[in-house]
Amino acid sequence: MGANLRRSMSSLNKKFPRLLPEPIRKGMKVADLIDASFKAYNGGRLAEACRLFTQKMIAGNGTVGMSLTGALTPAGLGRAAIVPLMKAGFVDWIISTGANLYHDLHYGLGMKLFAGSPFLNDVDLRRDGVIRIYDVLFDYDVLLDTDAFVRKAIQGPEFQHTMATDEFHYLLGKYVYEREKKLGIEQTSVLSAAYEYGVPIFTSSPGDSSIGMNVAAMALRDSKLFIDVNRDVNQTAAIVYAAKSSGSTSSVFILGGGSPKNFILQTEPQIQEVLGIAEKGHDYFIQVTDARPDTGGLSGATPGEAVSWGKVDPEKLPDTVVCYADTTIALPILTAYALATHGPRKQKRLYDRRDEMVKKLAREYRKVRERA
Amino acid sequence: MGANLRRSMSSLNKKFPRLLPEPIRKGMKVADLIDASFKAYNGGRLAEACRLFTQKMIAGNGTVGMSLTGALTPAGLGRAAIVPLMKAGFVDWIISTGANLYHDLHYGLGMKLFAGSPFLNDVDLRRDGVIRIYDVLFDYDVLLDTDAFVRKAIQGPEFQHTMATDEFHYLLGKYVYEREKKLGIEQTSVLSAAYEYGVPIFTSSPGDSSIGMNVAAMALRDSKLFIDVNRDVNQTAAIVYAAKSSGSTSSVFILGGGSPKNFILQTEPQIQEVLGIAEKGHDYFIQVTDARPDTGGLSGATPGEAVSWGKVDPEKLPDTVVCYADTTIALPILTAYALATHGPRKQKRLYDRRDEMVKKLAREYRKVRERA
Amino acid sequence: MGANLRRSMSSLNKKFPRLLPEPIRKGMKVADLIDASFKAYNGGRLAEACRLFTQKMIAGNGTVGMSLTGALTPAGLGRAAIVPLMKAGFVDWIISTGANLYHDLHYGLGMKLFAGSPFLNDVDLRRDGVIRIYDVLFDYDVLLDTDAFVRKAIQGPEFQHTMATDEFHYLLGKYVYEREKKLGIEQTSVLSAAYEYGVPIFTSSPGDSSIGMNVAAMALRDSKLFIDVNRDVNQTAAIVYAAKSSGSTSSVFILGGGSPKNFILQTEPQIQEVLGIAEKGHDYFIQVTDARPDTGGLSGATPGEAVSWGKVDPEKLPDTVVCYADTTIALPILTAYALATHGPRKQKRLYDRRDEMVKKLAREYRKVRERA
Amino acid sequence: MGANLRRSMSSLNKKFPRLLPEPIRKGMKVADLIDASFKAYNGGRLAEACRLFTQKMIAGNGTVGMSLTGALTPAGLGRAAIVPLMKAGFVDWIISTGANLYHDLHYGLGMKLFAGSPFLNDVDLRRDGVIRIYDVLFDYDVLLDTDAFVRKAIQGPEFQHTMATDEFHYLLGKYVYEREKKLGIEQTSVLSAAYEYGVPIFTSSPGDSSIGMNVAAMALRDSKLFIDVNRDVNQTAAIVYAAKSSGSTSSVFILGGGSPKNFILQTEPQIQEVLGIAEKGHDYFIQVTDARPDTGGLSGATPGEAVSWGKVDPEKLPDTVVCYADTTIALPILTAYALATHGPRKQKRLYDRRDEMVKKLAREYRKVRERA
Repeated sequence: MGANLRRSMSSLNKKFPRLLPEPIRKGMKVADLIDASFKAYNGGRLAEACRLFTQKMIAGNGTVGMSLTGALTPAGLGRAAIVPLMKAGFVDWIISTGANLYHDLHYGLGMKLFAGSPFLNDVDLRRDGVIRIYDVLFDYDVLLDTDAFVRKAIQGPEFQHTMATDEFHYLLGKYVYEREKKLGIEQTSVLSAAYEYGVPIFTSSPGDSSIGMNVAAMALRDSKLFIDVNRDVNQTAAIVYAAKSSGSTSSVFILGGGSPKNFILQTEPQIQEVLGIAEKGHDYFIQVTDARPDTGGLSGATPGEAVSWGKVDPEKLPDTVVCYADTTIALPILTAYALATHGPRKQKRLYDRRDEMVKKLAREYRKVRERA
Repeated sequence: MGANLRRSMSSLNKKFPRLLPEPIRKGMKVADLIDASFKAYNGGRLAEACRLFTQKMIAGNGTVGMSLTGALTPAGLGRAAIVPLMKAGFVDWIISTGANLYHDLHYGLGMKLFAGSPFLNDVDLRRDGVIRIYDVLFDYDVLLDTDAFVRKAIQGPEFQHTMATDEFHYLLGKYVYEREKKLGIEQTSVLSAAYEYGVPIFTSSPGDSSIGMNVAAMALRDSKLFIDVNRDVNQTAAIVYAAKSSGSTSSVFILGGGSPKNFILQTEPQIQEVLGIAEKGHDYFIQVTDARPDTGGLSGATPGEAVSWGKVDPEKLPDTVVCYADTTIALPILTAYALATHGPRKQKRLYDRRDEMVKKLAREYRKVRERA
Repeated sequence: MGANLRRSMSSLNKKFPRLLPEPIRKGMKVADLIDASFKAYNGGRLAEACRLFTQKMIAGNGTVGMSLTGALTPAGLGRAAIVPLMKAGFVDWIISTGANLYHDLHYGLGMKLFAGSPFLNDVDLRRDGVIRIYDVLFDYDVLLDTDAFVRKAIQGPEFQHTMATDEFHYLLGKYVYEREKKLGIEQTSVLSAAYEYGVPIFTSSPGDSSIGMNVAAMALRDSKLFIDVNRDVNQTAAIVYAAKSSGSTSSVFILGGGSPKNFILQTEPQIQEVLGIAEKGHDYFIQVTDARPDTGGLSGATPGEAVSWGKVDPEKLPDTVVCYADTTIALPILTAYALATHGPRKQKRLYDRRDEMVKKLAREYRKVRERA
Repeated sequence: MGANLRRSMSSLNKKFPRLLPEPIRKGMKVADLIDASFKAYNGGRLAEACRLFTQKMIAGNGTVGMSLTGALTPAGLGRAAIVPLMKAGFVDWIISTGANLYHDLHYGLGMKLFAGSPFLNDVDLRRDGVIRIYDVLFDYDVLLDTDAFVRKAIQGPEFQHTMATDEFHYLLGKYVYEREKKLGIEQTSVLSAAYEYGVPIFTSSPGDSSIGMNVAAMALRDSKLFIDVNRDVNQTAAIVYAAKSSGSTSSVFILGGGSPKNFILQTEPQIQEVLGIAEKGHDYFIQVTDARPDTGGLSGATPGEAVSWGKVDPEKLPDTVVCYADTTIALPILTAYALATHGPRKQKRLYDRRDEMVKKLAREYRKVRERA
């Protein structure tokens, strides 16, 4: 080649914006910094995620589901970012690991966590009764006291039946909310805020965390509390179906990956492939993760791959962003950006409509089966 | 400094082996190559994992639990490696994502998957009815037919009650086993082999996969199949407690991370912290993962961190290995190494002792409570 | 265990700050957001890096060296962040890959780069004469015209001798500076700013980039321009030695890893191990990278490992931070933080003292050899 | 959708092989294990790399360049894998970091390295005079004695002029080769084997390593040894041009990434873009790395991106493989595979033709300029 490529005239300027950031100045606000200087690589992706979230996902009253994995609440991001997002009406429903909800309890119960270091000697820590989550430290008593709180709460009569995790977390959140009030603290716990704002919180692995462990221990006594996994599967699909069938949008905001990522995405195959109801897939997709596509897990699977499964609407593939970054960096930034550039929305209180939504889905499924 | 460090005489030669590998030769067997040339970095860790597995974990009849995440069965590693390990009696119980079990069904039902490419156009694939898992491809019909198989199977009378996932997978595995026999194929499915060898398989997120989705859909009809998550939590703790309280060892072999990693490790805090029974932690620990400690999830949490929680016995910390590598590379190598250097063990058939083990744990818990 | 760990009283509160972030609010400035909500994991590390840079590295007139790898200037971070840091007197000397300097030229010469996408078809791009650096796009002409600029510049008489890369980049920077003036643009190019502020820029791999390629091509004609690698090695060690021997501090701010990381760190072993001059190692160390320690390269080697080599003062190990994050995210944030919380420093203009510094080092080496 | 996707008949079976691996058996040889069970994800990529290397790169007498980054020789992979590959005639020229060549000297000089651990206390190690490279340990004396060897060798008269790095390494390799003979060891050092087999070894960053540091120190005395970087750039391009212009193939086998990756790839833009000679790009491309495309460095840039630069022939894009794996795992496997499945080739001894090749390139450049 050589000669024939020379002096070609491309039309780049018609398709893409020029990349010429402004110099960073003293005293910039977060949104200005993002828009001015985050232009390429994962910095560029983070800026795109900020704009996709603000300009499309929460615009027009679309329904936003968020999935939580990784040590977000231990890192203080429940209080710093997730609660403010719920309060602003920017997150309508949540799938979380059990661990994020269990450690959220420490905050809601006024217990103390400490900003430590990842380089401590764990044998010493074990001897001294100190628990470590990477660089977050707390006393072993925090576990024991939180366990005791859970065991006491779930002995209440309202817990003595089989229920889905959104109901379980709502009931538990009420106890946390009341404890917060009593302690004079507020806006500290995701579970408490979810109760207050009617945000349904599910977990895809109900036995996998100290909450589930305590529920299981009580079942060795005489507890009647059992989790209805089937209802979780159908309830989450019902939330997505309610949004889509009403002409609104359904968006997923995925922090990390893991089982919650699959659980939030499988709502669409549940509707289409299993229940046989015509649907097209989620509209908008943001994932913040360190998991690359090649490493074998769904955590790193791309929105493109999700299109092949019908999880994401093929026509909306351009409206998907994967940002490879630590959520402890990306989530505060996106939260600050969204709060700065979009006014609060009225909370949807999807929890209040849970029976109605799942009935609608069941009705539609019956229709499909009768047609078949 | 400079001068004062010069000519110091260290005692490295007394503490560590010399690093001087043999040149690689034509026709080496796998175990020879590993022992001869895998000396440092993750190569060194993989060699250590091979030896830890063979010389300690499966030595002396210790109990070995394996957790599966990432697309192992889609990549063919069920048939290539996991079934051979079960057949050799090297894996006694399993925690798996639902996805690994769902895609295992395709193999057991004689369906066709293809070795494709990660660089295909997903919008085209969607149009053509092709499903992609990274570089594994198959027809949309594979999903529909597998779904139909699951839905048909679980309408059987033996499924019409609430059960733990090990029982559910055992019952389902029987159907797969019979289908394999009918098709004249064998040693192809993890679920089938688990049924044959009495290896209990749990999933920590029972609703999170197409299996769980179909179970949930049937619950919208008139199915009586519900999952007892509490029993899973207690049953897995009971397996570990049975091993440890009988003077044997309990080892974990973690492929990937995710919820199954936490679920296999939380057995020890369930025994110690929640049930209050004296125990020290797992004895041996191997993890093959790409998740680093700093990225926020339990997937990357180190054995050291697990010590601070009582998940791993502090005195056994030197007997832990984390190898940062693709399981699609590490698992075949470790399997080949173990089969080459250790004779088969008699299968423990832990499934047959499930009631007995959980009763023992419940009895011990009662004793602890009475003492308190 | 169990019982014996219960109710232990730890002294965490005396050693570590409580982890209780403030909720993110509308309109926060960057430094407030960092201090308020970046508490753990890599978010915590980034906050620590911001404070280490501002409160220790640039405090007290310490000397700060920066190493650049990865596509920083293509991503616009020359103009957005590096030039502002130099202008504020926060970066005193630089080791860069050749690529970062070559692509910096496009900005200094007023050429156009575009914010594109990483998902384009490269065979099409090649056909259309478009060059791609991940998601940054530009015309093939940009390369040809930049090459022509370099070839023309280095035919000047001031280039016709053997020189170190700091001199080469200074001379080239003068041409860029003049071109900027002519075009009426400013603060756009790292090379130009380095010339203006007397910041020496070295490259550890002088032949490895289009700049080096053009220099080599001219050597096939009759150019007398050769690079004196030895001078680079000694000059960089001399900068560090000048700082340390005058009682000041020497800090490294490492963006990425690679050869520039080693080159900036090897200054200390050059002083101690090779030249035999008593020294203790760099004082402060920040690295922003995605390279983990286990993956085999110096890119991921920890400050601890550097201590074992004498590269970092063992007593200063607590003053080292590694943040695993994209530099396209971390660098703008750290720049904004530093500009917001520390007033500008007078530029050190180390370039003007290059002969003096290297002579001092040579003199010291002679003394050591005479003593031996 | 739903209905319209059902029962579509795809033609996957015509385009892709069925994914149905054989069960792993006792006593398998390495190549059998790879071909039988490495089917997808990075396992699949590693198998593809093994076959691409053996069936295309070293078939038909093609020229193979290898780039080395990361701690390969410290990990013993010089002796284990790289020397056997050179001896078998499978690697014709090399770009290496200086560090890999410096640490290779320890082996060639019969010094002792030890297989240690990454979890040691570096402050203690520093005090005890122990050097750590991740989990490889050795005495500080190993550095001092290697330094002394280098300084002594380069005082020889044959070193007293300006030379390219291939000549420098050849001359140094002769000393190592002779030392090996004297010590009665063999096949231990890459530098020695390169001398013996006429394999040119370049480094892209000649000052960046203890070799370069000692060369620089001697320049502070009266050494006349200077590195001609320009010759390196042109010599490497000349090797590629000699292969391609003679109708043969040019392949790159990239271990890690970094500056050596760029240096081996820039040979094609040097030919095409800078010298203006018609060429199409490298034919075959294997990279083993942990660097993902999104993280900002050329280390992670894909073969596709290289196509947009003309570094890789667009028509050969299907013949490129990137395997995300530790080189300490992948390199021994690929070496064992190649030695098992391909007979040795006669060494090309490209070093002996260095003047001839660079003259041919210069001649061609002159022609192009005269035509212009």
